[in-house]
This record gives sequence, structure tokens and C-alpha cells, in this order.
Amino acid sequence: MAGTVRESAVREGAVSAVLDLASAQKALDAQPFSRLVQARITEFGHGAATLEIDIREELLQQHGFVHGGVLSYAADNTLTFAAATALGPAIVTGGFSIQYLRPAVGRTLRARAEVVQAGRRQAVCRCDLTVIGAEGEESVCAVAQGTVLPLNGPAGGNGEG
Amino acid sequence: MAGTVRESAVREGAVSAVLDLASAQKALDAQPFSRLVQARITEFGHGAATLEIDIREELLQQHGFVHGGVLSYAADNTLTFAAATALGPAIVTGGFSIQYLRPAVGRTLRARAEVVQAGRRQAVCRCDLTVIGAEGEESVCAVAQGTVLPLNGPAGGNGEG
Amino acid sequence: MAGTVRESAVREGAVSAVLDLASAQKALDAQPFSRLVQARITEFGHGAATLEIDIREELLQQHGFVHGGVLSYAADNTLTFAAATALGPAIVTGGFSIQYLRPAVGRTLRARAEVVQAGRRQAVCRCDLTVIGAEGEESVCAVAQGTVLPLNGPAGGNGEG
Amino acid sequence: MAGTVRESAVREGAVSAVLDLASAQKALDAQPFSRLVQARITEFGHGAATLEIDIREELLQQHGFVHGGVLSYAADNTLTFAAATALGPAIVTGGFSIQYLRPAVGRTLRARAEVVQAGRRQAVCRCDLTVIGAEGEESVCAVAQGTVLPLNGPAGGNGEG
Repeated sequence: MAGTVRESAVREGAVSAVLDLASAQKALDAQPFSRLVQARITEFGHGAATLEIDIREELLQQHGFVHGGVLSYAADNTLTFAAATALGPAIVTGGFSIQYLRPAVGRTLRARAEVVQAGRRQAVCRCDLTVIGAEGEESVCAVAQGTVLPLNGPAGGNGEG
Repeated sequence: MAGTVRESAVREGAVSAVLDLASAQKALDAQPFSRLVQARITEFGHGAATLEIDIREELLQQHGFVHGGVLSYAADNTLTFAAATALGPAIVTGGFSIQYLRPAVGRTLRARAEVVQAGRRQAVCRCDLTVIGAEGEESVCAVAQGTVLPLNGPAGGNGEG
Repeated sequence: MAGTVRESAVREGAVSAVLDLASAQKALDAQPFSRLVQARITEFGHGAATLEIDIREELLQQHGFVHGGVLSYAADNTLTFAAATALGPAIVTGGFSIQYLRPAVGRTLRARAEVVQAGRRQAVCRCDLTVIGAEGEESVCAVAQGTVLPLNGPAGGNGEG
Repeated sequence: MAGTVRESAVREGAVSAVLDLASAQKALDAQPFSRLVQARITEFGHGAATLEIDIREELLQQHGFVHGGVLSYAADNTLTFAAATALGPAIVTGGFSIQYLRPAVGRTLRARAEVVQAGRRQAVCRCDLTVIGAEGEESVCAVAQGTVLPLNGPAGGNGEG
């Protein structure tokens, strides 16, 4: 499911036009909310992106599980970064759908998203959210599917998705 | 779209069995992530709930708008609290879908959710997310739709949703 | 939630550039699958559209309820027609999310969709699906939320949803 | 992503308690709408199901593409049949989210769904929809993600998804 990496004009200068892991991490760090959550990007390129968050007490809900809001933050951001590998940084998240599979408990939350298809009008991405435990064991806690829209619009209109 | 408020056994003791605004706020405060975000509940009952967050720099993304992850946190939590007015506190969020309409800029983010229908197997809720500006003007920035599942299962199985 | 009705170039000539109920019904009738299902449009304009289908045996699943596929067809089409009142006919459905509330049983299935917001890059619409019984009583059987994308792209890129 | 096949009581007698391809096809044929669409099941078991529909004029929209309503019918049904391999036949579809990637043109529409996780309260499934062309070439036209709920409820309540 590799996307196409294209050079794009940078809209507001916050991200380097070269789309690599270092610039993606820089873009993430430029987001105050991502700093509050303490997320990091560990993969970026070729239609995919991975975000990780070390689980700490501040991110939990009342039963000791990671709050659903942290999972949906991770899905939202990772789907969008994955789309950026194909559409460039001048994009906006259209929206997404997430389903929770089991309570998220562990050391680290990992969200990995892939571009399913980068069309002219929207990129559609899927995201798997997992928790990694003390022994490195990994299990899926949620799945998401979402769309990302190019800010500058499609190149033309011939009916293609 | 009023839901039915029923007494429910409290699963882990974190929330009073009496479902009123004070206990709902207490439940919210028992969520570390909600304290990190600094959310508050301003409405709870009769199939509806409203959550508000004063917008501050820590909640933004790199272009000065409220981070999509904050909107999705608000949708996730408010949909679930609305369902609690009908299903009681022994519930778990099944998932939700959110679409972003325009960048969220303003003084306060407000999320209001209503139960559309509280069935035996799932409650379906809708949520409108708005931003309130300096003069009190309010505009919709996102909409969501989601499901909440009772922990204890349906009473019986006769085919009703 | 009124949308803005704008004139649009007609992409393939199947629909009149004047967006009114008669042309919308013509567009619906130009869809072979809509003829197979026997759907009709009863409302079109001002950001909203309503589609109706008389329930017959051919549309059911094995337990005597309307097949979920008929409900999702109705949601897909009605969300799109509603968006057409605001964006014109040169559009494509981005996708949607639907939740089933209770089995659909009755004389007529009705799907009513409204544009929540018609942005430059996507229109977001909501849809209520109801069944109407023998005595005219109406009850909600499903709800949906979806996006519709303009074929010709946004006018410009200033960051607005 | 294999699901667990469990024996289940058959709710209304329409489907054999033995969950195999032959009974799944029988269940499909017991759905009048599936007969109208002329769908067939080509795979059923081990957490997965595949539905196919030969594309004919009756299934199209006005531009010659398969109607989105046919794709959403296929997603709805295939997600549910996939869940049946894990939860048995006493189930009801909770809902789903679908995104359209490109117009569906070809000889055959194929929908393949897999159970991501079969929990106590809901099974979450993903579905890939593809079109197969004259030379056998296959390309993805839509993706979906949905939930299926057991009619008889979870075995117990310990907080697991």
C-alpha cells in the first residue's frame, strides 16, 4: 500500500519540504498538544507513519486503562502523518472512524497508519493501535480508518476518486 | 431524544449510583487525562451531556487551531457520558466517527452529545462540537456519531437493535 | 443547517443545471440501481433531501426486516443528494458511517439528509433513516453521517475546512 | 486475524448450526435483497468471508460506475458474515464506516472481510472491496470497518472490549 511521495509547497513554514523522519518529528514537536501528550514519531515514509506514546498515569481514565481520547488523538495524528508521506504537508484531516477492541493497558501505545489510496480529492488511510507490554508483547487495542484532504485541491476533475 | 435513566450497579465504585451532574463531574475528575486536558461537564441528564474545555496554547496544533485530537477526545468522552444518562455507568465506548468541518479557533470548545437511541446492545449517540468566541458567538467545528455498549449485556434476545 | 445552492457546471449532462426537485428525481431515475430498488425523491433543496422506498419483499433479509444494505444504499444516496443542493451535481461521495438502531419494519423507508456544513473541500451531511407504519407512525431505524467531495476542487487554500 | 468458530444456537432456523460455506450460501440465498442483487459467497470460515457480485447494468449509477449503494450493501453483508464465523449466526450488524477510493468499474465486485477481534460485546471487522477486470486484474475501490453484536450478549462483565 505504498503511497506516492511528492514534493509540496509548504503552507506555513512549520515543516521542511523534505519529507523525512526528522522533519516529521519536528512537525510533531511543533504541535503543543503532541508535546503535552508526549508523542514521538518512529516511522515516516513510503505511505506509512508510526507514532508512540509511553503510557503514564496522566493519560489514563478512571479504571486504569489508557483514555479513549488518547487513542483517538493517536489515530487522528498518525492517519494524517501517513497521508503526508503521499500528499505532502499541505493537508487537513477530513475525519475518521475508530473502534475500540479491548482496554489499552501496557508500557507503550503504538499507532501505525498506512495510506490505502492517495486520490486527488482525498487520501484514505487505515490505522492499527496496539499496546506493548513489559516483555515486548504487542496486542491490538483499536483500529481506525480515516480521510485526509489536500489543501490545494485536485489537479483536475475526471471522475477519479 | 430523551434516554431512560436507570439505576445500575456501579462496576468499580468510582461513580455514585445516582446519575446527576455532580457525580458526572466527579467521574470526569477521576479521569487523569480529563484533568490534563482540563475538561468540565456543564450538562448531564435526560439523554444528553455537555463537556467544555477552555482553549489554551497546550491544546493546539502547529497552525494555532485546536488539535483534532482534543476534538476527538471531547467527542469520545461526551458521547459516552450522554449514554451514561440512559445506560448507567457500567458502559464502555464501542467507537465513533468524527468529521471536522472547519478549524477550531475560539475561547472555549464545547461538545454536546445526545442519545439517539438506547437499545439493549448499544446506545447510539450524536455529538456536535462547537467553538465559542470572545463575544459568545458559537459555531460548529466538528460532528460525531458513536456507540456505547453496556458492560452487562442485554436483558434478552428478541431481535431488537 | 441550510446549505448554499450554487449553480454548477453539469459534468456529464445527466442532470439539469437547475437544481430542483424535478431534476433531482430525473437524476435518481438515471441511476439503474435506484430504479431496481424503486426509490423516489420527495424533497430536494435548501441543504436537504429526502428519499423514500416502499418496502416490499425483495428488499428484506431473512428475518423479515429491511436489509441493512437497503438502509445503507438510502443513506449513501440521500447524503449525496443533500450535498448536491449546496455543491451542485459535480460531486462524488467520500464515504459515510451508519449505525443501525432497531430492525426496520414498516410500509415505507424514509431517509432524510441535511448538510451540516458545505466547505471548500468536503460537505458533511447527516441522515436520519425512519420507517413509516400502516397508521403513519414514524420511528428512527438508523442514523448516518458522511462526506461528499466537489469534483472540481476548492476555490483556494486558506486553511478553512 | 483468525476468529474463533463457536457453535451457536440458531435463532430462527434459517441457518444450519454448522458454519460452513454451504450453509453461509444458504443464509445468503434466504435474503431476498441478496437475491435481487445476485450476490454469492465464495469464502466463509476462520474469521473471514468473501462475497462476489457480477457487475451488470442494473447495479450502476448514472455515470456507468457501480452504485455506492451496492458497495455499501456488500460491505454491510460481508462484515456480518465474517463476524458469523466467530460469533455464530445469532448476531446483528451494529454499523459500519465506508470510504470510497475510486469509481468501481469492472466485471466483478468482490468484498472480503476479516474479523479483527471478536470480543464479548462486539466483533470488529474490516472489509476490502475490489473490482476485478476482464483480464483478472484486481484493484481496491473501497474500504470499510464495522461492528457486529451478539444477540445473546456477553458471557460476563469484566471490562474486556
